[in-house]
Amino acid sequence: MIKAKIVGAGGYGGVGITELLMRHPEARIACLVDVTDVGSPMSALYPHLAGFCDMKVSAPDSPEAQAPADVVFFSTPDGVGMQLAEAELKKGARVIDYSGDFRFNDAETYAEYARRIGRDPAHKSPHLLPQSVYGLAELHRAQIGKGQKLVGNPGCFAVSCLLGLSPAIRNGLVDLASLICDCKTGVSGAGKKPAASFHYPARYDHMNAYRLTGHQHVMEVERELGLLAGGPVRVTFTAQVVPTCRGILSCLYGTLRPGVTPAAVADAYKAFYAGSPFVRLYDRTAAIGTAHVRGTNYGNLIVDVDERTNRLRVVSHIDNLMKGQAGNALQNMNLLFGLPETCGLDRAGQYP
Amino acid sequence: MIKAKIVGAGGYGGVGITELLMRHPEARIACLVDVTDVGSPMSALYPHLAGFCDMKVSAPDSPEAQAPADVVFFSTPDGVGMQLAEAELKKGARVIDYSGDFRFNDAETYAEYARRIGRDPAHKSPHLLPQSVYGLAELHRAQIGKGQKLVGNPGCFAVSCLLGLSPAIRNGLVDLASLICDCKTGVSGAGKKPAASFHYPARYDHMNAYRLTGHQHVMEVERELGLLAGGPVRVTFTAQVVPTCRGILSCLYGTLRPGVTPAAVADAYKAFYAGSPFVRLYDRTAAIGTAHVRGTNYGNLIVDVDERTNRLRVVSHIDNLMKGQAGNALQNMNLLFGLPETCGLDRAGQYP
Amino acid sequence: MIKAKIVGAGGYGGVGITELLMRHPEARIACLVDVTDVGSPMSALYPHLAGFCDMKVSAPDSPEAQAPADVVFFSTPDGVGMQLAEAELKKGARVIDYSGDFRFNDAETYAEYARRIGRDPAHKSPHLLPQSVYGLAELHRAQIGKGQKLVGNPGCFAVSCLLGLSPAIRNGLVDLASLICDCKTGVSGAGKKPAASFHYPARYDHMNAYRLTGHQHVMEVERELGLLAGGPVRVTFTAQVVPTCRGILSCLYGTLRPGVTPAAVADAYKAFYAGSPFVRLYDRTAAIGTAHVRGTNYGNLIVDVDERTNRLRVVSHIDNLMKGQAGNALQNMNLLFGLPETCGLDRAGQYP
Amino acid sequence: MIKAKIVGAGGYGGVGITELLMRHPEARIACLVDVTDVGSPMSALYPHLAGFCDMKVSAPDSPEAQAPADVVFFSTPDGVGMQLAEAELKKGARVIDYSGDFRFNDAETYAEYARRIGRDPAHKSPHLLPQSVYGLAELHRAQIGKGQKLVGNPGCFAVSCLLGLSPAIRNGLVDLASLICDCKTGVSGAGKKPAASFHYPARYDHMNAYRLTGHQHVMEVERELGLLAGGPVRVTFTAQVVPTCRGILSCLYGTLRPGVTPAAVADAYKAFYAGSPFVRLYDRTAAIGTAHVRGTNYGNLIVDVDERTNRLRVVSHIDNLMKGQAGNALQNMNLLFGLPETCGLDRAGQYP
Repeated sequence: MIKAKIVGAGGYGGVGITELLMRHPEARIACLVDVTDVGSPMSALYPHLAGFCDMKVSAPDSPEAQAPADVVFFSTPDGVGMQLAEAELKKGARVIDYSGDFRFNDAETYAEYARRIGRDPAHKSPHLLPQSVYGLAELHRAQIGKGQKLVGNPGCFAVSCLLGLSPAIRNGLVDLASLICDCKTGVSGAGKKPAASFHYPARYDHMNAYRLTGHQHVMEVERELGLLAGGPVRVTFTAQVVPTCRGILSCLYGTLRPGVTPAAVADAYKAFYAGSPFVRLYDRTAAIGTAHVRGTNYGNLIVDVDERTNRLRVVSHIDNLMKGQAGNALQNMNLLFGLPETCGLDRAGQYP
Repeated sequence: MIKAKIVGAGGYGGVGITELLMRHPEARIACLVDVTDVGSPMSALYPHLAGFCDMKVSAPDSPEAQAPADVVFFSTPDGVGMQLAEAELKKGARVIDYSGDFRFNDAETYAEYARRIGRDPAHKSPHLLPQSVYGLAELHRAQIGKGQKLVGNPGCFAVSCLLGLSPAIRNGLVDLASLICDCKTGVSGAGKKPAASFHYPARYDHMNAYRLTGHQHVMEVERELGLLAGGPVRVTFTAQVVPTCRGILSCLYGTLRPGVTPAAVADAYKAFYAGSPFVRLYDRTAAIGTAHVRGTNYGNLIVDVDERTNRLRVVSHIDNLMKGQAGNALQNMNLLFGLPETCGLDRAGQYP
Repeated sequence: MIKAKIVGAGGYGGVGITELLMRHPEARIACLVDVTDVGSPMSALYPHLAGFCDMKVSAPDSPEAQAPADVVFFSTPDGVGMQLAEAELKKGARVIDYSGDFRFNDAETYAEYARRIGRDPAHKSPHLLPQSVYGLAELHRAQIGKGQKLVGNPGCFAVSCLLGLSPAIRNGLVDLASLICDCKTGVSGAGKKPAASFHYPARYDHMNAYRLTGHQHVMEVERELGLLAGGPVRVTFTAQVVPTCRGILSCLYGTLRPGVTPAAVADAYKAFYAGSPFVRLYDRTAAIGTAHVRGTNYGNLIVDVDERTNRLRVVSHIDNLMKGQAGNALQNMNLLFGLPETCGLDRAGQYP
Repeated sequence: MIKAKIVGAGGYGGVGITELLMRHPEARIACLVDVTDVGSPMSALYPHLAGFCDMKVSAPDSPEAQAPADVVFFSTPDGVGMQLAEAELKKGARVIDYSGDFRFNDAETYAEYARRIGRDPAHKSPHLLPQSVYGLAELHRAQIGKGQKLVGNPGCFAVSCLLGLSPAIRNGLVDLASLICDCKTGVSGAGKKPAASFHYPARYDHMNAYRLTGHQHVMEVERELGLLAGGPVRVTFTAQVVPTCRGILSCLYGTLRPGVTPAAVADAYKAFYAGSPFVRLYDRTAAIGTAHVRGTNYGNLIVDVDERTNRLRVVSHIDNLMKGQAGNALQNMNLLFGLPETCGLDRAGQYP
């Protein structure tokens, strides 16, 4: 059994991976670590876990938190994993970090990211960066499996955009200067901490765009698309919040290059995702939405061409807490340990 | 493997038992039957099932719908099961009916129920009634298991009220003339069919009481409580709808009989539910609500005494589609087939 | 024109009375006071007011906040009004306080209230208490008008319960030991400040009971009902939160005294509310809910008798921020200044 | 007083204009007409109107529905107004039609529209088309006022897009081939009639794109932008539904033409809307969303330039039932009768 430690267990990313590991046939939770609620059973923080996960939350400096684990999930904000990952790696663990700390595998790119989001551009463990991989299996499946120890789990918006645009970019279907990502997220994407903007009376019956000055997930989208394109890519990115709990709906646009047909587009997407069990493809007649991926690790893509304007339009649906976070992290764990990618994740969700 | 047939597969009760059977280690779905959407894959009706349940919906008179099954779930409205159950029983199936058709095991009581809800008081298969059992394991566990073939799955409100009041009634803790059930349900309790009252703009930011003239679930509550009390019981029952999808929150009140102490109340509930894996007991300091049973088969009870007024107050929480419907039906199936009661149901839910 | 000062302008109670005063034909806002957001235009806190109320928020110790006003609304928590009301009264203002500070007009009763909610039992301005009146026009209309200077605006739950039960108590229709108030509120009742329990992901699709150990509004309900009954009254009171923004739905129960007929009940309610423009009476066939009072000062009552159990059941609907707070406060202002009770309040709301 | 008749009074568009006319100082409702609920008081359909609008709904062929009115609002689907408008005009009424029937003022353009949405391309009253005007005051203010008798009230999505893009198009700021309208609406935009997709359990926690094959509002957007551009314009348009009741949030994109600066963009918008009382302009630092226009006739625009991609981005906020429907219709009525444009509409809304 894979012994797993979860750092930042008390947040939504922590409870998400807790739920998944509880059901995973090859893993078990060895330790739950957080800086708040220390000593409380996880089921006191999350009453739905009563009888399922009554393990107490440990302080980071507690003895049990020091014990070696096979895998450590850092469900922590930017700046934590880069300080703590090395010790875990040295103890033999594989590390999956949810933040931006290991999403860019060289110090220079990291520094640019850090500057954009107003953080110290100096990475605390720059020597680890070359060992890290951007943890989106649909782009880096082989690399994640091959003796990999350190994974930067992607941002939720980035997952939705990259799933939707990668085949088009890889195959040169669209004009790189024409890319627009119009992304709507449910509120759980903001995490567990209450804030004025997510207070129920302020959030129900309300939608808004935010961080128009620049969202932290843009850079990893551009970085990964750039790798696929073989050159720099810039996107216009608009983050929006709507009153759902879970779900990201991203509408992705790009002008088709001359001669690219709708059939070629459809073929490219089919080919690109042939070996990807969590991507489902639909055409524009499909009556699907975010509720149909709720609670699952699936990314559902409507791949469409607006012939009137010669434009690619992809509607990308994920659950931001699953394929956008904990589910994707578990998918990475499976790959790291040579397990089937879908192990513990092949669930249909629950409806309504 | 237990071969299961689901009649009324297209509704919320049907998709609920479909989801559960897909994950059940000892059962498999043999046939999905409905009168609408015939020929459509279940995953066309419910896109979250794509790749999980693409079986087509069969017409009731199709050959595959005639094939014998080990268990048949009638997720159908009042009046259907009573006409079709006998044929299934003759073919050797065990039958679990979701409607009021088999919740009362004598024709006279059924007739009274039918009159209350404005239906024909003559049961179509009165000879089957004595063979039926009210399918709430927490009250009739032994009987459901013992060679039982025909189960009337309870109404969702009734489950919430009976879980909350049965220990008090069985132990004579409260004045039988003082019982009040104040029950709030999420909208999924009304089923899949759109209606003016459940249209999103009419339902968001809205709560209302309904059927103040008499709700169809009252009689089974009174019947079962009467069996526990050894005499007739009447309750004041107020059904309300609030803008949630899932969940029933019932506040249940009764005046304590002289000499009954809070400790005696607590003990009675603990003893009553000692062997019931799906009931969790809490005191009034617990910070729990319906989201903590969402997607699960649990009934969470806050058992409280208002000493100032000498009144028992129980706050009962269930997921109306699980413990209130499909989950409870699967619990019954497990008992009918001698499986552990929790088989396929020991899940913690997902949060948030 | 009546010059109004609002203390605590930045909260929901403050913006509520701001909206109403902006439209009131006989009043105008002279000063907005708060301890946070000082110097910000009200329309920066509440963008819907842009162009309507761009007045800046003043600090309590600013010169403009010291200027005399004709009426001062204290939309402040317990403990503030009792310290500041006297100065305003001395400057000639009439005072309407939203908290519990002036809901009990003698120091002894206040002390009991304060003890229950864990506050200092010593009132800071006990000499003012005899001058105060409980500000529910439907109970104390004459007194509020008659040269009154100091009004304790009621708690939102209390309004819903008192509207629903007062006619029954005044007319001796129900057994005083049998009273139960089962009350559900929308989230705005908790105010503007974010909290874990009202964070959107934690609140959507969720209902829960809270403060089962005792809600602060119970005592004023018992006090006012006791005045009507001519003796002590105790109620069982259950507060619940559901995912709506506005609205309180209270189900109120009491066993009818011998010989009380449904017709007598209906007559009593009609007579009691004959001169009350904001109370609308319905029978149990009415298809109404909280959305139908949303944004208005109305209290809609379904008055019902459950003949099977000989029990009075009243379903009381108000908007917690209007009849439960700012609307009721304005109604009090109208009475204090001899204006028609409905002035600035005779609005139908907006639907859906 | 302007006597108003509302045809299609029972729908959301009908109740919306009813609410507004009730408060309008210069108009009164003379007749409410519908084909359903005939004989019912409006307050039976909409209980919030009890005491405010108890007028009964009249059948279209009733005598009172034949009486001349000063203005007739056709809150009816495509195909109704074109058959009935002429009779009203002959009786001397001014006509405001909510459907697509009079949004295109020549038969040829109408035919193209009708074909796109699968209707008979032959207009039933083609001779009226040249007399009609597209009823968006921000584009056609002068024309709507000048002896105009027949107005085609715009589609809700179209209002949000045209407010957001018109200044850019009029001033040649953006490449006409680069326009994208990514539009999210609340559910009330679908009207009052229940449907599977708007059933509460299917709609809560769910977002989806729809009519990717072509939305009926696209053509009027292209038509009006084309008039501003002086040549044909095509947009990529993506309609989405999110779980709010009211509100449209449209993100509008276009690539800036060479040399166009952010300052030039800001100036163009300011100049364009100088005389438009219902448009409020914001920059990208504004913390606004759809709740801040809820219940009002305002269109709030965040006008932004993404310098990294040289792209104009406008975030347009309206209440789909107000500026997107009834409020805009009343604004048109005011202009038709020479009243101040804001008469009966200068309201701030209510929050939260």
